[in-house]
Amino acid sequence: MGGEEVRNKQIIFKDYINGFPKESDMIIKTSTIKLKVPEECSDAVLVKNLYLSCDPYMRSCMSKLDNNYVPIFTPGSPIVGNGVGKVVDSCHPDFKKGDLVAVMVTGWEEYSLIQSTDFITKIQHTDVPLTYHLGILGMAGMTAYAGFYEISSPKQGDTVFVSAASGAVGQIVGQFAKLSGCYVVGTAGTKHKVDLLKNKFGFDDAFNYKEEADLDAALKRYFPEGIDIYFENVGGKMLDAVLPNMKFNGRIAVCGMISQYNLKEEESEGVRNLLNIMAKQIRMQGFLVYYYRHLFPKLFDLVIPLIKQGKINYVEDIAEGIESAPAALIGLFSGRNVGKQLVRLASDH
Amino acid sequence: MGGEEVRNKQIIFKDYINGFPKESDMIIKTSTIKLKVPEECSDAVLVKNLYLSCDPYMRSCMSKLDNNYVPIFTPGSPIVGNGVGKVVDSCHPDFKKGDLVAVMVTGWEEYSLIQSTDFITKIQHTDVPLTYHLGILGMAGMTAYAGFYEISSPKQGDTVFVSAASGAVGQIVGQFAKLSGCYVVGTAGTKHKVDLLKNKFGFDDAFNYKEEADLDAALKRYFPEGIDIYFENVGGKMLDAVLPNMKFNGRIAVCGMISQYNLKEEESEGVRNLLNIMAKQIRMQGFLVYYYRHLFPKLFDLVIPLIKQGKINYVEDIAEGIESAPAALIGLFSGRNVGKQLVRLASDH
Repeated sequence: MGGEEVRNKQIIFKDYINGFPKESDMIIKTSTIKLKVPEECSDAVLVKNLYLSCDPYMRSCMSKLDNNYVPIFTPGSPIVGNGVGKVVDSCHPDFKKGDLVAVMVTGWEEYSLIQSTDFITKIQHTDVPLTYHLGILGMAGMTAYAGFYEISSPKQGDTVFVSAASGAVGQIVGQFAKLSGCYVVGTAGTKHKVDLLKNKFGFDDAFNYKEEADLDAALKRYFPEGIDIYFENVGGKMLDAVLPNMKFNGRIAVCGMISQYNLKEEESEGVRNLLNIMAKQIRMQGFLVYYYRHLFPKLFDLVIPLIKQGKINYVEDIAEGIESAPAALIGLFSGRNVGKQLVRLASDH
Repeated sequence: MGGEEVRNKQIIFKDYINGFPKESDMIIKTSTIKLKVPEECSDAVLVKNLYLSCDPYMRSCMSKLDNNYVPIFTPGSPIVGNGVGKVVDSCHPDFKKGDLVAVMVTGWEEYSLIQSTDFITKIQHTDVPLTYHLGILGMAGMTAYAGFYEISSPKQGDTVFVSAASGAVGQIVGQFAKLSGCYVVGTAGTKHKVDLLKNKFGFDDAFNYKEEADLDAALKRYFPEGIDIYFENVGGKMLDAVLPNMKFNGRIAVCGMISQYNLKEEESEGVRNLLNIMAKQIRMQGFLVYYYRHLFPKLFDLVIPLIKQGKINYVEDIAEGIESAPAALIGLFSGRNVGKQLVRLASDH
């Protein structure tokens, strides 16, 4: 029985918040855990977390909203999110000690007991970087795939605009657009990110929205004929500037609206140019990656050969140690991350 | 050659406007016209206008906007819009004197020389009221058909909300929704209109939005489980109240946003609840009837039998005489009309 008892550092969610999240909304706590699935937990798997994923949607888990589209965090319990880890002990026939696994809802802690194996997958493709299973081969990749191929109806020659374009999802969307023969322009918030868009991800052009006093004018400069597809990650003023620049029969794939997540209700930016949706027969459509997860095999078929041939790039921003996780998460909302934000807990895989 | 010269009263568009249109933006002018197609106009048709149609989209023809989706009016020339009339003289082989015709772009005048026959159709169905070709069998009917059947993906049991529900389009949408086995609630701006919705058009329920201090609360009362389909005619605050009340995978067919047409740019109502589009996988899609006109045969097949069997109702508001046309048009924007607004010029068909 038993199993060695070891330290288990955890990131505890303090309480529901309003407005911007702060590091102090999370507490670092040192617990202990036995490295063995308790007898009463049939089918459970004990995982040593190796990498945690920081994602913008996690802001929505920190507030009780009318229409939460994600499960909210429990005050006093660890933050939960995507992770990859290694099985330390297993009572489930599909998983054995030493297996590498991707977990959709693991705790932000060194070791997690995963009691429902619905959202844990054994990693089959071990010949690519392990972290890719939290990025280009994980939720971010699937989000880009669903939003671009399933929602945006791309065709060769289409003009594509991506906001938050160097982020976890945007950088993939831009590369998918190029694979489809589209003209793609991205926007990001620093010179370094703009350089990445042009030189690393192969966007046709890119600009720093913080340097544009007039977003409408900037869009007219990059898209004199208008935009066929807008991949929406930002919302608010950005969306309002895009709408008049959409082409007839344009598509807007609503992946996220990060500019609005931390605003109190009265602060949210009203969008005034929606009449364009009628006047130009625009289709604006939201999607949640969860409902497209059956397409993972198609994502793998497309992307894994591209990764192996070096034909697709993926930039990650890896924070070191579980103690750095709160700052890494909060950094998403000020654009501090460059590419996909991860936290490394251990690398002994 | 010649032909009798007769009086031709016209409604002249004065100049581009900003904000709400006024009667004084149009001038009544008495010209004359020879009742014969001029020799140099091969293929032209001379039409005596019998009924003119007043439509909200005509507001967009009165301003030079960035993204006009309709041809704008020419200052000093007659207003143009939909009409039905009788051919007085024809140089086109498809039309002969005495034919009843529906014209997509006729002048607001007693007689119009139609030089392009692209947008003139001989009326085949003469066993229904002639005015219906400007309403339930015309652009309004086609708009309701396209927006409901082609855009909204209705299925039995869906909950449907229609704004401006007693208007030219809304009253048809509600009846289509009932035909499809949906639960449909409409909103309008007077008690009389609300009564029509419930008692004449068979909506399951209806309310006067002017009597609801809290639109969100009203929608929660009528749709405790949420809205599957919103047929959008209004925009602004109404759309903002609807968005949080949409169901998962809901559809918003954007037909019009009449509350916003007369507002100056800085007055337009910002919509704050767009995050629901992502969180609930909503599809919000605009459409213009012009691009669905190939479906007129399907509209006729559906609606004409229903009209003859008395299974569909259509309420019209008919102003008498061309002099009443400016007030009739402007009345649309204060909701003065009850049902489809028309102007009768003559009834000698």
